[in-house]
Amino acid sequence: MNKGRLEAFSDGVMAILITIMVLELKIPHAADVHALAPLAPIFLTYVLSYVYLGIYWTNHHHLLHAATRIDGRILWANLHLLFWLSLVPFVTGWMGENHFAATPTAVYGAVLLAAGIAYVLLQAAIIADEGPRSKLAIAIGRDLKGKISPVIYAVAIPLAFVREWIADALYVAVALMWLVPDRRIESRFRD
Amino acid sequence: MNKGRLEAFSDGVMAILITIMVLELKIPHAADVHALAPLAPIFLTYVLSYVYLGIYWTNHHHLLHAATRIDGRILWANLHLLFWLSLVPFVTGWMGENHFAATPTAVYGAVLLAAGIAYVLLQAAIIADEGPRSKLAIAIGRDLKGKISPVIYAVAIPLAFVREWIADALYVAVALMWLVPDRRIESRFRD
Amino acid sequence: MNKGRLEAFSDGVMAILITIMVLELKIPHAADVHALAPLAPIFLTYVLSYVYLGIYWTNHHHLLHAATRIDGRILWANLHLLFWLSLVPFVTGWMGENHFAATPTAVYGAVLLAAGIAYVLLQAAIIADEGPRSKLAIAIGRDLKGKISPVIYAVAIPLAFVREWIADALYVAVALMWLVPDRRIESRFRD
Amino acid sequence: MNKGRLEAFSDGVMAILITIMVLELKIPHAADVHALAPLAPIFLTYVLSYVYLGIYWTNHHHLLHAATRIDGRILWANLHLLFWLSLVPFVTGWMGENHFAATPTAVYGAVLLAAGIAYVLLQAAIIADEGPRSKLAIAIGRDLKGKISPVIYAVAIPLAFVREWIADALYVAVALMWLVPDRRIESRFRD
Repeated sequence: MNKGRLEAFSDGVMAILITIMVLELKIPHAADVHALAPLAPIFLTYVLSYVYLGIYWTNHHHLLHAATRIDGRILWANLHLLFWLSLVPFVTGWMGENHFAATPTAVYGAVLLAAGIAYVLLQAAIIADEGPRSKLAIAIGRDLKGKISPVIYAVAIPLAFVREWIADALYVAVALMWLVPDRRIESRFRD
Repeated sequence: MNKGRLEAFSDGVMAILITIMVLELKIPHAADVHALAPLAPIFLTYVLSYVYLGIYWTNHHHLLHAATRIDGRILWANLHLLFWLSLVPFVTGWMGENHFAATPTAVYGAVLLAAGIAYVLLQAAIIADEGPRSKLAIAIGRDLKGKISPVIYAVAIPLAFVREWIADALYVAVALMWLVPDRRIESRFRD
Repeated sequence: MNKGRLEAFSDGVMAILITIMVLELKIPHAADVHALAPLAPIFLTYVLSYVYLGIYWTNHHHLLHAATRIDGRILWANLHLLFWLSLVPFVTGWMGENHFAATPTAVYGAVLLAAGIAYVLLQAAIIADEGPRSKLAIAIGRDLKGKISPVIYAVAIPLAFVREWIADALYVAVALMWLVPDRRIESRFRD
Repeated sequence: MNKGRLEAFSDGVMAILITIMVLELKIPHAADVHALAPLAPIFLTYVLSYVYLGIYWTNHHHLLHAATRIDGRILWANLHLLFWLSLVPFVTGWMGENHFAATPTAVYGAVLLAAGIAYVLLQAAIIADEGPRSKLAIAIGRDLKGKISPVIYAVAIPLAFVREWIADALYVAVALMWLVPDRRIESRFRD
């Protein structure tokens, strides 16, 4: 089966999600620089979610690049991942408009958690298809980053109700951890 | 002719339809969890329509993968299908905002019915081009699911005015029936 | 140069234009069938513009399929066409919300006229590159439909101020004339 | 690695950015030609930003066409460029709705400046990968246009507070300078 189309569809969805988040930056009526101040939290959440979607896109790019076969189960594992990512603009806007209040911050983490699990499931579906001795399975290895991220989100969610900034700091920390693209796959396949 | 472009255009339209549905989830002003409660019916209809668009995407993927030739008639049969799918966000929002009231529920079914018929027509146009003894024609076979779905929608539409939940249950039932991707094509072409 | 990317970008723009037109169908608050009545003119203009964008997409598909080379001039001729098409949702909404009033109907025709001329220019840029004895140049031939369409739009624009329906009928007539895809190219290249 | 997907994703984002800018052209309620007058500054900023995004798209097209390898660093340099481009609709709308007032005009220039720098960084990342004696490095050469553009933006930003039209004229001048696509790459690779 044709993985090009799975990639193209996922690219389309992720490209649109990134650009509809920017629509939350409502154009202010006033023309002075102070009119931008109320947009600061919305801008910050936009940057955070942009980086998250960028991470998903680059990792998805690496993962699918390494996949050699696609079946119906992988198509749905991918649609499942895109479903959770499609909720990112909503939770981003909610968190930004409420200045990182506890509940929106926790719900933001819950969507990140669901997307993180969906990514692990997609990866598992592809590895199941490729086989445990495939190049991809070896390149992914123990997948420490993939397994630790959902744990950090799960810890951050209740902490949002203690101090919002702890949860936010954890989200930023996970993003920074992933900003380094999945060199495992890259380096392994370069040989 | 180049089927890649037909696929890319359809992917683009379906990706955008999925993501504009999510815009109906209006960001609440309040920051507590109760603010999410009024969004529950809109969220449920989003999930249902997301699954439907996912089904159309995966089946479209299988169908076009199996097609070997494209002509002007197939281009328009495909545009016809995309037209009905383009109305899904509208009817999804209408049904969700009115808590599954009778008329929006019936109109939702009417759009599903039209899209279902359009899919059958697209499939017929492709098979006509491929020939009755083509791999695709044999893989599709009698196409029980394709023929029974429009019948169920046609039954559900009047039942929406008796009890809304009967129609909704029928829409969910068809979705579940299709969630299994079109293994006929997949298994036949794997040989 | 790579024509695949020109096609993909144009597909993206046209797919988004089609789907943002559907956003003009504002979801009514009431849940009865009468709530749909005020949407009728907007729906009709949506159908007309959907067909027009479908015509541009299929003709663009045929034209680019036949092109063998792309240069910077063709890229900009294509961006010029997409610019005018990008105004279609605006004029569609304006005409629909004002129930086919004279001025919006004339402006709708003006955008169709500009897009029609832009298409002819794009076609000319491609033929200039391919050469007058190329397969494409011969397939296009005298291009009666391409030349007559702008003339009809130019006639329709002033007539919108006499009787709106005459202009609307002319727009529908041109659409019907084009609904037959560009078989010239298709049949010539099939040999 | 697969550069096709980088191109497709960038095409998707740029196609959507172009089309969401058009949403700033709010449909007027009145049906006469005077109702279009208040849209004039928004239309002019739309044309300017459309041309800028078209320039980025064609130059990106040429640049990536010439690239032979993609790595994680290039993926992120590209996402960085797309981030700044994603802010173009916001600053376009702000400048248009405020009739080219000083602050929005300066902020528009700041986004152009950031995007211009991001493009130079992306180009540098690709050349670093290709090597200083690669066809691409030689074709780009000293890259006078690429280096002078950020300088002009940096000059225009403070001048917006002296006379808005000077900044606007400089933005138009840079656009005109770039409208000639990057013939260096084109001509070099034609050989």
